[in-house]
Amino acid sequence: MEASVVIILKRCESIPTAENYIGVDKGALTLARSGKRMLLAIGDFDSVEESDLSCIKEYSDAFIQLNTIKDDTDGEAAVMYAIGKGYQKIHLYGGLGGRVDHAMINLRLVSRFPETVYLHDENNFIYSLGEGIHSIGKRDYTYISFFTEDESIITLEGMKYPLTNQKLTNKDTYTTSNEILEEMGIVTVHTGKVTVIQSKDA
Amino acid sequence: MEASVVIILKRCESIPTAENYIGVDKGALTLARSGKRMLLAIGDFDSVEESDLSCIKEYSDAFIQLNTIKDDTDGEAAVMYAIGKGYQKIHLYGGLGGRVDHAMINLRLVSRFPETVYLHDENNFIYSLGEGIHSIGKRDYTYISFFTEDESIITLEGMKYPLTNQKLTNKDTYTTSNEILEEMGIVTVHTGKVTVIQSKDA
Repeated sequence: MEASVVIILKRCESIPTAENYIGVDKGALTLARSGKRMLLAIGDFDSVEESDLSCIKEYSDAFIQLNTIKDDTDGEAAVMYAIGKGYQKIHLYGGLGGRVDHAMINLRLVSRFPETVYLHDENNFIYSLGEGIHSIGKRDYTYISFFTEDESIITLEGMKYPLTNQKLTNKDTYTTSNEILEEMGIVTVHTGKVTVIQSKDA
Repeated sequence: MEASVVIILKRCESIPTAENYIGVDKGALTLARSGKRMLLAIGDFDSVEESDLSCIKEYSDAFIQLNTIKDDTDGEAAVMYAIGKGYQKIHLYGGLGGRVDHAMINLRLVSRFPETVYLHDENNFIYSLGEGIHSIGKRDYTYISFFTEDESIITLEGMKYPLTNQKLTNKDTYTTSNEILEEMGIVTVHTGKVTVIQSKDA
């Protein structure tokens, strides 16, 4: 059984059920206010009142207040903490929407840690896959799209638009809006790694 | 004077003032309902009623109905049409939020066409810069962030965190949340190209 943790980033409003939480900035306040105990509360907390801060501390096993200059790597710091603690599945909530530069950082974290960092919101489920054969559940997503940061070779089976040993580059835009036909699709990554976006319309 | 066009994508609700418009899918309906004449209405229009379709046609000089299989490259088709018609500044609205795969395609269009394709929403203004010295206005954005799809060397002046001949790769996440100190900052791209995200908090 792999150890997993849910990281609640500042923009997150609803909290999924989990065994372990890390709260980032206002995400820590959201967790504390919901009575959820955190492994760690981390952030610069410059937008949080003094009284809220004591509430956050009350609900967190560890507390790290970052310099405001480090503000925008809060999420990254939380992910690195979770990896350092041995968590193998790290689920980020509240990391999309709003500022696109923040979303970009979260997408790069996904790409840096295949099958480890997962990004969630109401319409999207995003993760990356390293070399190997991967079974992908359709879940309740309509579409499945593939992107690569560098270059990869992939095979797609059980999908509306199958591909065989297809080279994918970071300029390609055509591997979007594919669909898993039945319950499961198979993605084989022959070389490189791919970012997978499973999505549904808003 | 460079010819410019505003492309309204499906998710766009408020329309900026412009001389030339292209409407994509529901974006075309939004334009038609606001009485805006379009150079082109393009999309699969599968989510648009028959009566809406005649309204769209009434307001558009050209009309292209794409196969639904081509659905998700509607925005790309609109950009290629605008480039083919000689427009040098192409502003996309409604291309962020919702499905991240769609946003990724729009970000790749930005990167593919430096100083040509601009992506806008309430919190973000995104474009890319090719080699050369570029003056960047602060406008009403708090932050300025830099990303590259491949590799580039940049110098940043007039910013809170200046950089000199800094190599940037597509793995880097530290060039975010910089700030232009006065009215203008200077970005020199020595080699490669960079995507610039000017943003403000939601």
